[in-house]
Amino acid sequence: MALMAERARIARFFAPLSHDEPGSFALTDDAALLTPPLNHHIIVTTDSVITGIHVLPNASATQLAEKLVRRNLSDLAAMGARPWRYFLNLHTPDNLDDAWFAEFSATLANEQQRFGMVLAGGDSTSGGERVHATITCIGLLRNAPMRRSTAALGDDLYVSGTIGDAALGLCVLQHRLAMDSASAAHVTHRYHAPEPRLELGEQLHTLASAAMDISDGLLADAAQVAQASGVQLHIDRDAVPLSDAARSVVAQDAALWHTVMSGGDDYELLFTAPAAQRDAIAALGSALALPLTRIGVVVAGSGVTVDGQLAQGGWEHA
Amino acid sequence: MALMAERARIARFFAPLSHDEPGSFALTDDAALLTPPLNHHIIVTTDSVITGIHVLPNASATQLAEKLVRRNLSDLAAMGARPWRYFLNLHTPDNLDDAWFAEFSATLANEQQRFGMVLAGGDSTSGGERVHATITCIGLLRNAPMRRSTAALGDDLYVSGTIGDAALGLCVLQHRLAMDSASAAHVTHRYHAPEPRLELGEQLHTLASAAMDISDGLLADAAQVAQASGVQLHIDRDAVPLSDAARSVVAQDAALWHTVMSGGDDYELLFTAPAAQRDAIAALGSALALPLTRIGVVVAGSGVTVDGQLAQGGWEHA
Repeated sequence: MALMAERARIARFFAPLSHDEPGSFALTDDAALLTPPLNHHIIVTTDSVITGIHVLPNASATQLAEKLVRRNLSDLAAMGARPWRYFLNLHTPDNLDDAWFAEFSATLANEQQRFGMVLAGGDSTSGGERVHATITCIGLLRNAPMRRSTAALGDDLYVSGTIGDAALGLCVLQHRLAMDSASAAHVTHRYHAPEPRLELGEQLHTLASAAMDISDGLLADAAQVAQASGVQLHIDRDAVPLSDAARSVVAQDAALWHTVMSGGDDYELLFTAPAAQRDAIAALGSALALPLTRIGVVVAGSGVTVDGQLAQGGWEHA
Repeated sequence: MALMAERARIARFFAPLSHDEPGSFALTDDAALLTPPLNHHIIVTTDSVITGIHVLPNASATQLAEKLVRRNLSDLAAMGARPWRYFLNLHTPDNLDDAWFAEFSATLANEQQRFGMVLAGGDSTSGGERVHATITCIGLLRNAPMRRSTAALGDDLYVSGTIGDAALGLCVLQHRLAMDSASAAHVTHRYHAPEPRLELGEQLHTLASAAMDISDGLLADAAQVAQASGVQLHIDRDAVPLSDAARSVVAQDAALWHTVMSGGDDYELLFTAPAAQRDAIAALGSALALPLTRIGVVVAGSGVTVDGQLAQGGWEHA
């Protein structure tokens, strides 16, 4: 599209999102000038969402924006950082109209208010076949970050929330699984708009020995923690917390356990902690109204076992 | 592609590029932990390169990587910042082989060494039709950044280097323009591997009143400075510095002046400075062995004139 029309679009839909960061220069300059607050590290993460790959081919502008933001913020949560500024690269097919940009930017406005961050820059391009959006988030952290490499022998293994909903939601959206409408609404919402566990991440800092977010599936991400920490993780499958919706379909078709354990996109936190922290972790879960469930233990060895059987290779999807 | 194969590719080709930043965690964690040096602002810029849009459909991995890096660094140069860390989002069709990734990462290794920055994180995805690469660069700056909004009445208007080579190079590559082989090599190199004027940007800080980089074409970018600063820019066309290659083809076909004045991708700096700085700017150009050419003046009004005629709308390409 024409350069001046592109600039007008940025001014109309995106510059208002940068209002609270003077160093964004209202998105009119070559780069942003940022001055992080004193005595903080900055934590940077970046992830893209591409239609037909990370969201469905027919995803709405809202669905795309929410997945984009939350996928990134989950990485900040895993390290215990809080969101601060973000940059957007937005590449869109020529046939998108102003209504699409209005919806996309309104969703970003909601998201940045909700999560406490401000747009500080980016770029846009028209052309190509898919919507292709990238966010680079800068978070702030006072302490050392939580890592996935620091699980210790004898630690408990936990997950937040419930596991498998997003993968089951994708099955429903792809018409590969039928559910009653309330259950379907729950799991598809979990797929479209995962909740980054930012408060949990910030408060876990003094309790957890290691953490990461579950983006590729419980088994695959547990395998990452095991490998990075040089340990083996034992998971007790019956301890894995399921939503009512997930529990109901798994009870009818045990083969769906594979989807639950291996499906991605939950964006819950997987973390380890010494047994001495059990009470504090229970209290934190209560305070956040977020289940923090002990699903296993850290032992010597490598890889991940489920009910004593080694889970081969994690999630090696096509 | 399979998740574990993707991780192996990152470990093999990209983790070595992150070696000098411990906070990159060798690209194995959720985010990077960065601690900018004291008493610096951070300057952040981000730009993408998509095959068939920003580079030719058949661009090599080296051409894509060089354009990607330099396009971004030119934005840092325009503000007077120096490169520090960068993040890479790399999305590639499934059919690219290891040789492509080896060439791409080797080029990035050269580029980051040359320009003094370190890879600190990113993400990768396979699928889709085009190579789609984004870099987000973090630069460092001790002083206030140069802006495009601060040109003052009576200032001189300058450009670095020569203008129009990249656009002529694109014409040659698209077989729309014939040149002798030495000239063709010069202008196509300027298109593929523009030189970000980082040293100039850093040293212009005390001399220039405003600056931006020329990415969309001299007229379009001058119009940006004029609009942001609330002034008019007069350009003397015969003062616009041309390479020998450009001068030769323009002499044969005056219609190519349009390409020179309106074509993008030169990534030279456009800047304004008080007349009192002429000697200092001449000395800086000599020190850097880089022509810094006075091409006009800042006056009251709006828009850009070339030889007294208002240039309508700048570069409004399809």
